Amino acid sequence: MDAFDKDTELRAEVERKIESILPRGKKPFEVYGIIWDFLDRGGKRFRPLMCITSCEAFGGRKEDALPVAASIELFHNFTLVHDDIEDNSLMRRGKPCLHISYGLPLALNAGDGLFMASWKSIFESQIPPETTIAVGKCLYDAYLAVLEGQAVELNWHKNSVWGIKIEDYNSMVRGKTGALIGGACKAGAIIGGADKEAQGALWEFGNEVGVAFQVQDDILNVTGDFEKYKKEIGGDIIEGKRTVMVIDLLSKCTKPEAEKCKSILGNPEATKVQVEYVIGLMEKYGSVGYATAYAKKLLKSAKSRLSILPKNDASQKLNKIADFLVDREV
Amino acid sequence: MDAFDKDTELRAEVERKIESILPRGKKPFEVYGIIWDFLDRGGKRFRPLMCITSCEAFGGRKEDALPVAASIELFHNFTLVHDDIEDNSLMRRGKPCLHISYGLPLALNAGDGLFMASWKSIFESQIPPETTIAVGKCLYDAYLAVLEGQAVELNWHKNSVWGIKIEDYNSMVRGKTGALIGGACKAGAIIGGADKEAQGALWEFGNEVGVAFQVQDDILNVTGDFEKYKKEIGGDIIEGKRTVMVIDLLSKCTKPEAEKCKSILGNPEATKVQVEYVIGLMEKYGSVGYATAYAKKLLKSAKSRLSILPKNDASQKLNKIADFLVDREV
Repeated sequence: MDAFDKDTELRAEVERKIESILPRGKKPFEVYGIIWDFLDRGGKRFRPLMCITSCEAFGGRKEDALPVAASIELFHNFTLVHDDIEDNSLMRRGKPCLHISYGLPLALNAGDGLFMASWKSIFESQIPPETTIAVGKCLYDAYLAVLEGQAVELNWHKNSVWGIKIEDYNSMVRGKTGALIGGACKAGAIIGGADKEAQGALWEFGNEVGVAFQVQDDILNVTGDFEKYKKEIGGDIIEGKRTVMVIDLLSKCTKPEAEKCKSILGNPEATKVQVEYVIGLMEKYGSVGYATAYAKKLLKSAKSRLSILPKNDASQKLNKIADFLVDREV
Repeated sequence: MDAFDKDTELRAEVERKIESILPRGKKPFEVYGIIWDFLDRGGKRFRPLMCITSCEAFGGRKEDALPVAASIELFHNFTLVHDDIEDNSLMRRGKPCLHISYGLPLALNAGDGLFMASWKSIFESQIPPETTIAVGKCLYDAYLAVLEGQAVELNWHKNSVWGIKIEDYNSMVRGKTGALIGGACKAGAIIGGADKEAQGALWEFGNEVGVAFQVQDDILNVTGDFEKYKKEIGGDIIEGKRTVMVIDLLSKCTKPEAEKCKSILGNPEATKVQVEYVIGLMEKYGSVGYATAYAKKLLKSAKSRLSILPKNDASQKLNKIADFLVDREV
C-alpha cells in the first residue's frame, strides 16, 4: 500500500481536476447526479497516478499531465458503467450498479457522459496543441483496444465459447484491461517529452502490468475478503467469466468435472455450494497457483521495461505501483 | 430533394472518409462488422453536408472540414444505436435495431465504438492544431448537450411526466437534436475562419433547424408513408414520446380523452386501433397543424440568422438544406 498511501494529495488533485470538468450539482441530475453517485464511490485511481508518474519520470510537470490523468480515470469509470450493463452485474464498489439504481437507459446515458467528459479534459489541458493531438491519438488507440477486448469477451459469453487458449485470453485482456494502463503510461511519457522508443516501452509496461493486475483481480474474486474487496466473492463464476484460472482448470480437470463446471459458470441461478465447488476444483488443480505465477511473470517482464527510464523518484514509484497492483489484497 | 440530390459526390466523399477511419472488414467482427451493418443502412447524411457547407460559406476548404464532418456523422450514428437501446426500439432504417440483431451487450459496445471513431476523425484532420482544439471544444459542448437532452427525455418516460410545457420541450429537443446540427454548422464555421459572432449565428441556425427537423420527423411518424419513411408509423405513440403534437393535444382535449391517450401513449401492448385513436384526436384538435406551424416558424427564424453569411453558392445551399429538412416527406 505504501506507494499509494503517500499519494493522498496527488489523488486529491486528480479529484479536483475531475470536479472542474464535471461540476458537482450541475443539472440535469439525470446526467451529473448519476455520474457523481458513481465517482463518489471512490476507486483506487491508480491509472491517473501512473500517468502523472510516467510524465514525471521523464522530467515533465505534474500539472501538464493532470488533465490527461483525469481523462483516463473518467474513461475508466465510463467502461465500468457500460461493462456492468453488458455483464448484467449487480454490485460495483460496494453499492448497486447504476443500471440497478437508476434503470438501464439513464445509466447507459450517464456512462456516455463520463466518456464525453474524458474528452473534454484532453481538450482543456494547457500543453502545446501538437502534444494534445499526440496524446489524443495515443488515447484513441488505447480506448479502441479496450472496446475490442470487451467485444471479444462478450462474444465468448454470447456464443458459449470455452476452448480458449491462454494466448487468446492474453490478447483479449491486453485490450480490455491492459491498453488503458498502457495508454495512461504512454500518454504521460508523451507529455514528459519521452522519445518514441521510451513511449513504446511505457506502453508495453502498462499493458503487462494491466494484464497482471486483471489476473490478480480475478484471483481475489474467488479467494478475497468481501470487506476489503467490496465485490461479490465468486461473482465472476456466476457471470461465467473466462479467467486464467477457469482456462487452466478446464484444461486439467476430468471431462465430467469440466461439464459440471460449465453448467455452473455463467448460470445466474448457481447456488453458493455450486460456486464453492468450482473454487474448490481451482484449488485442487492448482489453477489459483498457476494464475498467481502467471501474474508474477508478467509483472517481472513489465518492470524490466522500466530500465529505459532515468533513475529518479518517479521511476522508482512506477516500480512500486506495479508491485502493489499485483501483490494487493484489495 | 434538390439540395441533396446534387450532393451525391460530396456524400460519397463523406463515406470514404468514414471508411478510412473505420476500415471495412477490420477485426473483430463484433466491433467493426456490427458498426458497418449499421452504417451501411444509409441515412440522409445531412449533418456532414451542413458542416462542410458552413465551412465553404466562409471561404474554407471542403477537405479541411471533411474529417470533422465525418466525425459528426459517426457521433450521430452512435446516438442512434444507444437511443434505440434506451427507448426499447425495434426498427431502425428499415431493419431491426442492433440490439435486436446482436443482443444488447454487443450493440452497446458497438455504439461506444462509433463514438470512439468520431473522436479519431477529429484528431486526424489536417487543420492547424489550434483549430482542431477549438473544433474539439465546440463538439464537446454540442455532444454534451445531446446527452443532457436525452437524459431529460428519458426522465419524462421513467417518471411518467406529462405536464410538459412547450418551452420545456423546446429546451429538451434543442439539446437532443438541435445541438448536434448546431455543432456541425459552428464547427464548419470555425474551420472556415468565421469570427465569434458568425460562429454563434451558425450555432443558433443549426439548433433551430434541428428542432424544426425533429418536429417534422415527429409529424411524419404519425402521418407519413412507411415505404418512404422506413420507420414504424405511430411508433412514437407506442414509445410514449412527448412531441409537440402530444403536448398540444393534451392541453386541448377533454379530461377523459387525455386519460385515454395517456393509457395508450407508451403502452407497448397498444393496438393499431388505439394508436389510430390518438392520431385521430391529434387531427381533430389541430395538433398536427400546430406542430407544422411551429416547425415553419423556427425554420424562418433559423434562416434569418444566415443573413450574416457572405452571399455565395454555399450560403444559398445552407438555406436550401434547411428548407428541405423541414418540408421533407422522408
